[in-house]
Amino acid sequence: MTMSSASPENVYLDNNATTRCDPDVVAAMLPFFTEQFGNASSMHAFGAEVGNAIGTARRALADLLGAEFDHEIVYTGGGTEADSTAILSALETQTGRNEIVTSAVEHPAVLTLVAHLEKTGRAKVHVIPVDAKGRLDMDAYRKALSERTAIVSIMWANNETGTIFPVEKLAEMAHGVGALFHTDAVQAVGKIPMDLKSTQIDMLSLSGHKLHGPKGIGALYVRKGVRLRPLIRGGHQERGRRAGTENAPAIIGLGKAAALAAAHMAEEQTRVKALRDRLEKGLLQRISHSFVTGDVDNRLPNTCNIAFEYIEGEAILLLMNREGIAASSGSACTSGSLEPSHVLRAMNVPYTAAHGAIRFSFSRENGDADVDRVIEAMPPIIERLRDMSPFWREREVRTAAFNPTYA
Amino acid sequence: MTMSSASPENVYLDNNATTRCDPDVVAAMLPFFTEQFGNASSMHAFGAEVGNAIGTARRALADLLGAEFDHEIVYTGGGTEADSTAILSALETQTGRNEIVTSAVEHPAVLTLVAHLEKTGRAKVHVIPVDAKGRLDMDAYRKALSERTAIVSIMWANNETGTIFPVEKLAEMAHGVGALFHTDAVQAVGKIPMDLKSTQIDMLSLSGHKLHGPKGIGALYVRKGVRLRPLIRGGHQERGRRAGTENAPAIIGLGKAAALAAAHMAEEQTRVKALRDRLEKGLLQRISHSFVTGDVDNRLPNTCNIAFEYIEGEAILLLMNREGIAASSGSACTSGSLEPSHVLRAMNVPYTAAHGAIRFSFSRENGDADVDRVIEAMPPIIERLRDMSPFWREREVRTAAFNPTYA
Ligand SMILES: Cc1ncc(COP(=O)(O)O)c(C=O)c1O
Ligand SMILES: Cc1ncc(COP(=O)(O)O)c(C=O)c1O
Repeated sequence: MTMSSASPENVYLDNNATTRCDPDVVAAMLPFFTEQFGNASSMHAFGAEVGNAIGTARRALADLLGAEFDHEIVYTGGGTEADSTAILSALETQTGRNEIVTSAVEHPAVLTLVAHLEKTGRAKVHVIPVDAKGRLDMDAYRKALSERTAIVSIMWANNETGTIFPVEKLAEMAHGVGALFHTDAVQAVGKIPMDLKSTQIDMLSLSGHKLHGPKGIGALYVRKGVRLRPLIRGGHQERGRRAGTENAPAIIGLGKAAALAAAHMAEEQTRVKALRDRLEKGLLQRISHSFVTGDVDNRLPNTCNIAFEYIEGEAILLLMNREGIAASSGSACTSGSLEPSHVLRAMNVPYTAAHGAIRFSFSRENGDADVDRVIEAMPPIIERLRDMSPFWREREVRTAAFNPTYA
Repeated sequence: MTMSSASPENVYLDNNATTRCDPDVVAAMLPFFTEQFGNASSMHAFGAEVGNAIGTARRALADLLGAEFDHEIVYTGGGTEADSTAILSALETQTGRNEIVTSAVEHPAVLTLVAHLEKTGRAKVHVIPVDAKGRLDMDAYRKALSERTAIVSIMWANNETGTIFPVEKLAEMAHGVGALFHTDAVQAVGKIPMDLKSTQIDMLSLSGHKLHGPKGIGALYVRKGVRLRPLIRGGHQERGRRAGTENAPAIIGLGKAAALAAAHMAEEQTRVKALRDRLEKGLLQRISHSFVTGDVDNRLPNTCNIAFEYIEGEAILLLMNREGIAASSGSACTSGSLEPSHVLRAMNVPYTAAHGAIRFSFSRENGDADVDRVIEAMPPIIERLRDMSPFWREREVRTAAFNPTYA
């Protein structure tokens, strides 16, 4: 990629944390800061023209999702707010039902909220486990569903491993017991094709900055006919479903980002995926005791998560950083803690491997040079850290003593 | 003013609805869309430099408020979210207290929420009346306070009339009964000087787009030591007080807007106020049966609200719009309804006057030419509408019959 933070030779492979705002998105937003700056709800011309532009942007986003009606889109301040809105609304509208079904590998935007709801006695929560590849335990899911289930919230794709969940089937099963189905699709929107109108998904969360749109804007898709209780009350904006002055520039930027994502969708499945696959193959070939986590057969095209055994992910990132390469260990939201990520723990990835897991996440802005750079830079980094690692030395002893066939 | 929506000759006097984003604010934000676009919570250089810029912006905003500590600022998605966060948090943290004291002239961001809380049995709400000038009934306020009061939420300045409330005194009285004091200062921040550290105000809401900053960003000031329960749960951003990826460009833009507001504070009290006063005097002199609503002795320097009797505000706005003049009747958030504004009703402004109230709200971007244009344009507009108004004709009969001294 050509643009970057510090120098043009930097390599940015942390697109699941956030993406660069596309210059075309910035260009689309710009007039709405200083020229068409009116309040979209105002009576005068300054407001009306902004209102029209918002309408067009809403249509572009609805199109990317395959939503049938524009007004199934409710703008929010981000993915987290959309998740909270969906879950809290369902608890209020689904009278007589107080159970939530979710997975062990959701983003903290879901897991922290449902843990709080359980702790404060407002809901009973079923956290469905995943297998070693990060796939949902379908038996446990089936058993957790009941006429007490208010809402199921299961992500479309996991942010750390890219593993994709069978949301269409999960939604049908949820409807089988009269529960609402919500999916956190923050990582999936713009990366894989969607056609919500042909599914039974009731609500879907997305976040602008994950698809080369602006930060501070997200949306909750709410299928026509599904009742929504606002999380933020006040003025009549968004048809009374989310109060607060419309964030016109960001809404318009997200519309542009959605149109660009639609235009690049095929490229995501081909060129971007090929870059990811080449990086993955190159690293696994060159670095022993490393493996891919997640469901390699059913993943986002842009994501790979590689566990480098016996070393610390934070230390790897530090040395990568010195080489100008940005990636992630665990998710950015949980950084600051040195516990291995809850996602890898839920998958039972051995502790000594989970600690050394690095997520490489691509976007359409990456190119072949990025892959070359990382394939070249990583082996010496891993070697250097392993040389200093007591776990690595201990492993050699153990391997020799207990497991002579494991080399 | 020179910039505008449709043509450069337009006059924008609707700055209480929203302001133009200052070009310097846009310039400050721009690099954070496409160059320093990292996630502020990320471990690598892309994230760290963004984190530093956010720190500087937080300091600028804290300075504008006279807050003692940077981390008394919690960024939100807007003023409405800040209001909701403050009020809902207080109900949770103030154990054993479930009453809310507020005023009849709050913004819907407060009134809609507290009405909902009362309706759903989660709080008892005392709505304190105002007098004909929009000033709080201090006796009623004193009586409403008790050891059951969880939180008082009274605005710093009213969005429709500009009337300023004695928030420092109100906060002391609230503390007298152990209640928290919150103020919706969305219209006050940037227009009048503040020094929060010398007050007893516990929480304060503001919104970026009201002070030439971006839309979609706001903040809740939370005095150090005051506990906050997050409205939006998830990642650890904002020290666990508001989850969701930091909206770096907007936070940095708001920092710049705060610095600019501080630099222009004196101008607001002098030049901008003089423009407002000249418009007001000019219109009252030229148009009979018109009067200023609100507390003329204690108002925001930029706001005037003039009631033109016997005609419809929406019709006035329509004709003003044809002349390229933007102002407001009621607040934008409640537009769509033809009821007179709840603020003017609370002040007992007679129905025939409240219907014809127009809010003119200035900013530092306005100039003398704007005032000249409006003073010239308004008299024929009002005359034309009164010629068509049955109320106006009826008034002439009534005035003659019942009130011969009223001319
Ligand atoms: C007094 C007051 N409070 C709250 C708000 C809500 O702010 P926002 O629309 O930015 O959420 C407004 C603006 O409309 C306001 O004038
Ligand atoms: C799966 C998932 N859900 C939710 C979020 C939260 O989105 P945001 O930080 O934009 O609120 C993220 C991003 O961190 C995510 O990856």
